[in-house]
Amino acid sequence: MPPVAPSSNPEAEVLLANESFYRAFSQGDLRSMSKLWAHLTTVTCFHPGMQALVGREAVMRSWSRLLRRRPEVPLRCLDPRVQLLGDTAIVTCYEGADQNPAHLAATNVYVRENLEWKMVHHHAGPIEHPVTPRKPSSGWN
Amino acid sequence: MPPVAPSSNPEAEVLLANESFYRAFSQGDLRSMSKLWAHLTTVTCFHPGMQALVGREAVMRSWSRLLRRRPEVPLRCLDPRVQLLGDTAIVTCYEGADQNPAHLAATNVYVRENLEWKMVHHHAGPIEHPVTPRKPSSGWN
Repeated sequence: MPPVAPSSNPEAEVLLANESFYRAFSQGDLRSMSKLWAHLTTVTCFHPGMQALVGREAVMRSWSRLLRRRPEVPLRCLDPRVQLLGDTAIVTCYEGADQNPAHLAATNVYVRENLEWKMVHHHAGPIEHPVTPRKPSSGWN
Repeated sequence: MPPVAPSSNPEAEVLLANESFYRAFSQGDLRSMSKLWAHLTTVTCFHPGMQALVGREAVMRSWSRLLRRRPEVPLRCLDPRVQLLGDTAIVTCYEGADQNPAHLAATNVYVRENLEWKMVHHHAGPIEHPVTPRKPSSGWN
């Protein structure tokens, strides 16, 4: 499929990419996870409490292990915020299991590759006071 | 001072900016910390275990509290790695107190504002297995 024209709403596009990250995780969908991560840029990942994974091979190996079985509960994204920096975007949000208060803070960085937003960095780590959703969530964010 | 010409080594420039972040923290130097954070872009910050701070005012208020007294030991940066994405750069590294093993993973994002690299996002969170410096460190990284 040829690249589509640049969107007039890149923030919305980034939020969709971010949503697809949590959907791929929640559905144990390694193929979508692989498609989401950048191919043309070196990627890095800090899973909660873990040391850095550097490079697509190491990062995808970790997802292959983590998504071997579909997670029992979905991982939800709460309060995503986009900082748009040209063709790069930072999303900050909280992550929680299902409808429980979110217990992780996350930084997700995306770049535009062939006009599609792709993840180049993920960092999730614990927070002391879990964040409660303001309203019941029906989707992945 | 007028902006300087673009450097032929942006990775080195980003590492210098990253070094100045840890130096400002270690010296309790709020003025340098304020200078380092972006002025033209919305900034965000996850201090270890804490919820998101959004906007320059909230972020600088937190540094003002944190740096009220010069920290007793320097905060050291270990194994910094730069992902250069045009005028944006992600630095991943570990943070530790003085010569102790590093107990935090950090994501620091910089953008070029008027040809100077400025911090737009900081996320530090605990890691389960602290990282030991490969060799004694004499500086901030």
